[in-house]
Amino acid sequence: MNQKIVFYHAPNSRSGGAFALLEELSADYELRLINLKAGESRRPEYRSINPMGKVPAIQHGDVLITEQPAVFMYLADLYAEAGLAPAVDDPLRGPYLRWLVFYGSCFEPALVDRSLQRDPAPPSTSPYGTWDDVLGALQLQLTKGPYMLGERFTAVDVLWGGALHWATLFKLVPETPQIRAYVDRVITRPAMQRVAAMDTEFLAQQAA
Amino acid sequence: MNQKIVFYHAPNSRSGGAFALLEELSADYELRLINLKAGESRRPEYRSINPMGKVPAIQHGDVLITEQPAVFMYLADLYAEAGLAPAVDDPLRGPYLRWLVFYGSCFEPALVDRSLQRDPAPPSTSPYGTWDDVLGALQLQLTKGPYMLGERFTAVDVLWGGALHWATLFKLVPETPQIRAYVDRVITRPAMQRVAAMDTEFLAQQAA
Ligand SMILES: N[C@@H](CCC(=O)N[C@@H](CS)C(=O)NCC(=O)O)C(=O)O
Ligand SMILES: N[C@@H](CCC(=O)N[C@@H](CS)C(=O)NCC(=O)O)C(=O)O
Repeated sequence: MNQKIVFYHAPNSRSGGAFALLEELSADYELRLINLKAGESRRPEYRSINPMGKVPAIQHGDVLITEQPAVFMYLADLYAEAGLAPAVDDPLRGPYLRWLVFYGSCFEPALVDRSLQRDPAPPSTSPYGTWDDVLGALQLQLTKGPYMLGERFTAVDVLWGGALHWATLFKLVPETPQIRAYVDRVITRPAMQRVAAMDTEFLAQQAA
Repeated sequence: MNQKIVFYHAPNSRSGGAFALLEELSADYELRLINLKAGESRRPEYRSINPMGKVPAIQHGDVLITEQPAVFMYLADLYAEAGLAPAVDDPLRGPYLRWLVFYGSCFEPALVDRSLQRDPAPPSTSPYGTWDDVLGALQLQLTKGPYMLGERFTAVDVLWGGALHWATLFKLVPETPQIRAYVDRVITRPAMQRVAAMDTEFLAQQAA
């Protein structure tokens, strides 16, 4: 398991969370930049890596891993010594998995509906319910603070802190004092600051 | 970790996958039936367990776990001796996480769009791309067969076999020979047959 991780990343995109996690974990990785504006994510070369044409994707040896929550779980367990994944026999393991999966299964699709101003699917059809249900469940969980799972900072916060940062910037999620304080707690971390600075530089290079 | 699992289940619903998994794992669990037709999943009593008002949910000691992929990961690691979860240092671990997460993050929301005949979100907005992308990625993975991850039957198949079974019945997913053979391979397993028989009985009781 000591092969380098190859990390496919597009600056200022959803892959920023995985970028921050790799930095938080002090992982051994090699960055491969994808230029979304130039359409690189949809070219056959990249589709042969991830058929969905999406970042993030990581390769570890012969293995490809896509989907943010899966990438997070994989990396945080691989670098278990960094302490960002509660162990399998830790009571926080269940909530840890729940909130990583909730991000991709509920928050992201509900946010798409919201940003496109779609009517919500009938509750009995929808696997993610209404936007109010999603936001309500999230806000209830945040009362456990300071972090999503309580006292302990985990990979869950790397994902949610970054996501709530952009979602409040785009005014898709209300910037309540609770959410603001949570976002600040996460994005002020040195690893988060480092990736933000690198992304700014990468974007400038891609635009040049 | 030897406390009983409390399992909230509605017959003939998305919680059927977790039901089948508990049986595959020979887990020690206590079933609590929810009557969806009677609206029990949306009553305050159940919302105090899962604020999203959805099944499946499991309680293990003081811990609540929701979201099918998270419930699957949690249970299959808890009952590791059943061999349905590749270990953290197994090369199948990454694909295992990827395909469990892909189910909730991509397949389910794309299926909702499809069943409501919604226009897909613009590719650059959508975290799950188009229906064709989702189905194409899935079909490509199934060529690795006989199971999703290749030779080895895992918890991924319990989720996908059951889901593709109902999705083909509802004509949301095309019943290609590949998909048909895969579904048959999974649903003919004794545990799958047992939960189907129990669900039929529970439904009859709830209707009475
Ligand atoms: N379900 C995916 C979503 C990833 C995603 O939407 N990535 C966007 C970046 S913001 C992307 O690669 N878009 C490129 C494109 O669609 O061309 C995940 O969770 O990893
Ligand atoms: N994102 C959830 C979706 C679960 C779900 O949609 N469950 C349905 C059963 S098919 C439900 O509980 N519906 C009850 C309702 O909305 O009242 C998961 O993956 O567990």
